[in-house]
Amino acid sequence: MSSHQVLINGAWIDSQGTSTFQAVNPQTTDTIPGDFPVSPWSEVEQALDAAAVAARAMRGWPGERFAKFLECYADKIEARADALVEVAHQETALPVSPRLKDVELPRTTSQLRQAAAAAREASWATPIIDSAANIRSMFGPVGPVAVFGPNNFPFAFNSIAGGDFAAAVAAGNPVIAKGHSSHPETTRLFAEAALEAALETEMPAGFVQLIYRTSHSDGEKLVSHPSMGAIGYTGARSAGLVLKSAADKAGKPIYLELSSINPVVILNGALEEKGAELAAEFSGSCLMGTGQFCTNPGLIVLQSGELADSFVQAVAENFKSAAVGTMLSGGVQQNFQQGIEELKATGAEVVVGGESGGGTGFSCANTLMKADGAAFLKDPEGLQAEAFGNSSLIVIADSLSQIVEILEHLEGNLTGCIYSETNGKDDTDYDTIAPALRQKVGRLLNDKMPTGVAVSPAMNHGGPFPATSHPAFTSVGMPTAIHRFAMLQSYDNIRAHRLPSELQDKNPTGSLWRSIDGQWTQGDVG
Amino acid sequence: MSSHQVLINGAWIDSQGTSTFQAVNPQTTDTIPGDFPVSPWSEVEQALDAAAVAARAMRGWPGERFAKFLECYADKIEARADALVEVAHQETALPVSPRLKDVELPRTTSQLRQAAAAAREASWATPIIDSAANIRSMFGPVGPVAVFGPNNFPFAFNSIAGGDFAAAVAAGNPVIAKGHSSHPETTRLFAEAALEAALETEMPAGFVQLIYRTSHSDGEKLVSHPSMGAIGYTGARSAGLVLKSAADKAGKPIYLELSSINPVVILNGALEEKGAELAAEFSGSCLMGTGQFCTNPGLIVLQSGELADSFVQAVAENFKSAAVGTMLSGGVQQNFQQGIEELKATGAEVVVGGESGGGTGFSCANTLMKADGAAFLKDPEGLQAEAFGNSSLIVIADSLSQIVEILEHLEGNLTGCIYSETNGKDDTDYDTIAPALRQKVGRLLNDKMPTGVAVSPAMNHGGPFPATSHPAFTSVGMPTAIHRFAMLQSYDNIRAHRLPSELQDKNPTGSLWRSIDGQWTQGDVG
Repeated sequence: MSSHQVLINGAWIDSQGTSTFQAVNPQTTDTIPGDFPVSPWSEVEQALDAAAVAARAMRGWPGERFAKFLECYADKIEARADALVEVAHQETALPVSPRLKDVELPRTTSQLRQAAAAAREASWATPIIDSAANIRSMFGPVGPVAVFGPNNFPFAFNSIAGGDFAAAVAAGNPVIAKGHSSHPETTRLFAEAALEAALETEMPAGFVQLIYRTSHSDGEKLVSHPSMGAIGYTGARSAGLVLKSAADKAGKPIYLELSSINPVVILNGALEEKGAELAAEFSGSCLMGTGQFCTNPGLIVLQSGELADSFVQAVAENFKSAAVGTMLSGGVQQNFQQGIEELKATGAEVVVGGESGGGTGFSCANTLMKADGAAFLKDPEGLQAEAFGNSSLIVIADSLSQIVEILEHLEGNLTGCIYSETNGKDDTDYDTIAPALRQKVGRLLNDKMPTGVAVSPAMNHGGPFPATSHPAFTSVGMPTAIHRFAMLQSYDNIRAHRLPSELQDKNPTGSLWRSIDGQWTQGDVG
Repeated sequence: MSSHQVLINGAWIDSQGTSTFQAVNPQTTDTIPGDFPVSPWSEVEQALDAAAVAARAMRGWPGERFAKFLECYADKIEARADALVEVAHQETALPVSPRLKDVELPRTTSQLRQAAAAAREASWATPIIDSAANIRSMFGPVGPVAVFGPNNFPFAFNSIAGGDFAAAVAAGNPVIAKGHSSHPETTRLFAEAALEAALETEMPAGFVQLIYRTSHSDGEKLVSHPSMGAIGYTGARSAGLVLKSAADKAGKPIYLELSSINPVVILNGALEEKGAELAAEFSGSCLMGTGQFCTNPGLIVLQSGELADSFVQAVAENFKSAAVGTMLSGGVQQNFQQGIEELKATGAEVVVGGESGGGTGFSCANTLMKADGAAFLKDPEGLQAEAFGNSSLIVIADSLSQIVEILEHLEGNLTGCIYSETNGKDDTDYDTIAPALRQKVGRLLNDKMPTGVAVSPAMNHGGPFPATSHPAFTSVGMPTAIHRFAMLQSYDNIRAHRLPSELQDKNPTGSLWRSIDGQWTQGDVG
């Protein structure tokens, strides 16, 4: 059979690529019929040119235009829900229900609609007016955006339907989606819906495009191309760093989410109060979705003693008795194995698990590892290696001050949690360690595992490097996530009729928030 | 005589460096007595360690603490105004009055006080509260900041007193200042005042530090050090790109202002209406301060014809008759000469000037160059080379559509201007070219030269690469400039008494702007 087409400049066209790939069903480990093309550079360039033309055509468009597309697209996704869920399940082995059907798909359409609302309301653009100097500023679209989606959220982070896509569009940009190779048919179905919505809402031809794969060097050329505005990437650290290097050199903003082990500190009062309960809560969070979450708790820090020993034992029992899930791909299984080996070589001890298999298809045993605080401090980098999947490392510190030292040696992470006793028994210890953890993570939690990532305006799904590439931005949460795909634009002495409506004296909607002469207001100038 | 001391960890100490440098008086081209040390890595590391300790000590401090320091510092600068102006004039040849005394120094203290006001008011931190999910977020300090100041603003962009310093402190960070080698004594005087203010307002020892020079490789180690939070750099493109590469690799946010030629398009109606007046306005803007402004208009685009020819001739006369100013240093003179030679090699024609000398000390003739649109489009990169100083290139396009094409081939710039006829005669042409220019610049102007950079909340002194390293940030304008030195921090399910005051239910000041459950308000939660 001939290979699937790519979506370039408003049409599905035959790829000029000569090589193809197939998706693999992780449960059977068999390839799934259907060839997807590896696009050659000429095709990537075609997409770049079309995106540049689209960006020019859309200059100055009001948020309303993008809101309409996003809402229409959300509707069309819902109309295809059954097909999307079925295909995504086949390509990723993620459970149909509740995961794909009841959680991830509704979350995805909700993100698109929240982005639409933010684009329409427009306050995200932060209009600032200095009427005396007649200087006015706001954020505007940055230009064509390339989105690289990850393997672990085929819907909510999909390159052509997920949060990066929604945010890039809400800011007024065209998107070139680079689908993840592990779920190409899922991505193709989204792209069909996106194209329909784009036609129905009269968007320009190069507004939304899809390619499935390129060579690594063409990926680097893509992200550093003069036409690029910005890049969103969620995925493996090694591939991400190669793209980052290329984009950085060209001065293109690139927002990467790379890796995170999401440290959890459980203080003694909390262990004493409800150690067994916490062991169950932790085990559930760590093994959920076979541990394949960016916010999976991969590092637990405890203070040495009987309470810690009991906790480790309880978790070990939980890990042994829990079902072993299927991993997203053979690559994930391989990397997991390698990560475990690296941790072992660095001095971590396997408490349970560590071996391949045990589940349907691609799988590895639920794996719990252990090291003491001194070992961690001897090689903090080695013991922070991420083994993406159903594993976690427990570090046993010999004192509270050693916990602080461990936290000060952490790389940047998406999240960090502290559990403490309910009635304040741990409060002094909390105050000792929290400031150190705060600075290392994008989101600090109390008494709660990090796995859930609410789509909230106050969410920060971000954090210092290497969790992400810039600590001031989040990839989840509207309207905050939109800022990644915007540039600051100041208007100095611009004649009134030439100003964007958001910056004219009269408030264009009566509800837009603007800073006028130092005061935030929904009113007019003067 | 022994060399000057460096300011490390709260004290002036002898440098461990073995080599030194001296400043040069640009008017006499003689060295100025006084040796300044090149700090070895051990000294830089000492500063880094002290800054990290200071950052930890200041975690959670309210903006009020930083406001008090900034205001006290501004007072102490004013108390030293005469000495600062005298020394800066000697080191830079910039005029005492109005430039240094009446413009740049008041601007500098005003920036510090505006930063203080923003730190105290705290709305810059953008508190967002989702009360249903109990997730709350705001921006917090990013960690130790290194500031590299440029040669051309010894006060307003000084590494230990200028806009980057003020913004980094307002965000709650310690600063390691790397003084510019062309005005070390000016910087030393600032540092004396800063230390006094830091002691008086009880800041930690490593809060404000100064080194004068390091080796290039130690500069790279500094910006990529694990303790670094972020870096601000204003200066030469080549040195900046080396630092950027090192910081990018380590995942450290680095905000660079590198180079900009600040295109100005003058439409025919405007030329017809007041060509001679505009020639005078442009000449004044281009030669002011010997052209040594980041926003110097270095590229003028006109449509071919008699009006353009008259404009070129009028500017040529102005350039010939205007006094030749003194440049900041021998290096500036050398780079200027080289830039002119490169432009000539790329096909630009010298209309007037082009040769060295003609003024007191380091100087070059006021230089006007010319090229046609086709030549520009043949080598757009070559003809965008910056010759920093009293020069400009006029490009004569053969049509309006060629102007658009020229604008589409521009690199990122800080500013872009369009002059048009007063009563709307040029409006159609304006609408044709403005969208293309808008996307290439941080600040778009009408009927006004770009040289003045008002310290306004609506200012964008920023722009796409290579003007700066990130198009979403400005280095001038409070509170916007503060965001560069902040990280986004989310608080998920944090117990109420542990939240920063800005995120507690009760509005801590009654005037802080927060987004609560989707509504911007100065009220409380609930």
